[in-house]
Amino acid sequence: MLCGGHHSICGNSTTMAAPRNSARKRAERESPEHRRSLILKAARTCLSEKGMRGFTLKNVAAEAKVSISLLSHYFGSVEELLKSVFRSVLFEERPVEYRKPKTLADAISNLQDIVSKNFDPDYYSRRNLLVWLPIYEEMLLNTRTRRSLDGIEQELAREVARAVSDVARFRKSEVDVDGFAYEFLAFLDGLWIRWCLSDRRDTRRERSAAFRFLETALGPLGVVT
Amino acid sequence: MLCGGHHSICGNSTTMAAPRNSARKRAERESPEHRRSLILKAARTCLSEKGMRGFTLKNVAAEAKVSISLLSHYFGSVEELLKSVFRSVLFEERPVEYRKPKTLADAISNLQDIVSKNFDPDYYSRRNLLVWLPIYEEMLLNTRTRRSLDGIEQELAREVARAVSDVARFRKSEVDVDGFAYEFLAFLDGLWIRWCLSDRRDTRRERSAAFRFLETALGPLGVVT
Repeated sequence: MLCGGHHSICGNSTTMAAPRNSARKRAERESPEHRRSLILKAARTCLSEKGMRGFTLKNVAAEAKVSISLLSHYFGSVEELLKSVFRSVLFEERPVEYRKPKTLADAISNLQDIVSKNFDPDYYSRRNLLVWLPIYEEMLLNTRTRRSLDGIEQELAREVARAVSDVARFRKSEVDVDGFAYEFLAFLDGLWIRWCLSDRRDTRRERSAAFRFLETALGPLGVVT
Repeated sequence: MLCGGHHSICGNSTTMAAPRNSARKRAERESPEHRRSLILKAARTCLSEKGMRGFTLKNVAAEAKVSISLLSHYFGSVEELLKSVFRSVLFEERPVEYRKPKTLADAISNLQDIVSKNFDPDYYSRRNLLVWLPIYEEMLLNTRTRRSLDGIEQELAREVARAVSDVARFRKSEVDVDGFAYEFLAFLDGLWIRWCLSDRRDTRRERSAAFRFLETALGPLGVVT
């Protein structure tokens, strides 16, 4: 594993499974979707193990066992690859299925779905924070990256705002929906980071804190946490 | 500047001011407190510019323009130096003066003091997040560091819990004080990180969000934000 740097926490189960590949698995591996997903996984491994300095097309291609030209074909530049990683973690790894709500219960269920995805163990993990820290650093140091990734982040904020707004409408509550969505996402980030950095909390408490936060503006959500 | 790495955001005003040093300033510089504070500043510069890999006694000593033996005399090992940086940012840079409250107004004033320190521009800054990101990474990868820094973090949580508990007592509200302090600190972290990574918010809104969070458990705090 080329990106096998100093972080023992990030193994790469894909490459480890390679010897057992059957013909079917190889074929799967060669489908464009599967290849794209392998490359994104390799990109996350490089980010978490080597930081932004090791996040190069060359390193990611080697980690994914594909050629640089194939990598460029799929993702273009390193900047575009970083955006794809960001977007894939926020949206593709945990797609939220939004259904236009007909009742308050539907609206609450959409919101629950968003919260549940957040606490998915693959997402709410130390491993994921190791991918995120170099991205944060790059966003601090590079205005263009900050703006483009912040734009993607705003899509997530709009998803949350839509779900909050639905519940508020059924409840006839007045809520500053955009401000509240922003603050809710900040709270989720803060809980996640604290959880990663301490050994004292379990995710049930975090989940319950997330719902209590929502309830301060939206009223009871009837969630057993 | 030895640590002058890739981060242009982190200048070091102390070394830049050196040529203008008067005799009085030199004397000040030689007082143990001042020397300690210069070393801690140099340590933060190294952390933010070179990450944990560049955080060595040698680099910090060069950045602070002191000998390695003097540095060891003050701080011992690199681990101890990291703890001192962590503690100094959390407590010494913004000491909170706790006065045992006689009235609800006193108790609220202690809480306001904590919130104000959090939004101090030196603390609530992108520069400070650049110091913090490598510390987060080290806490993720190194269990011993995580435990020892988390222990220091808990001291801060206890400060917050004490101030929350005072207000709750005057208000006769039942609050899970420790849980609430933990979540409040998570919210402050999340707001800070989001604020650093986007160009869309100002700290007045963040401050006001922080007080609204406190008010959900403690009732009106009468703060004009």
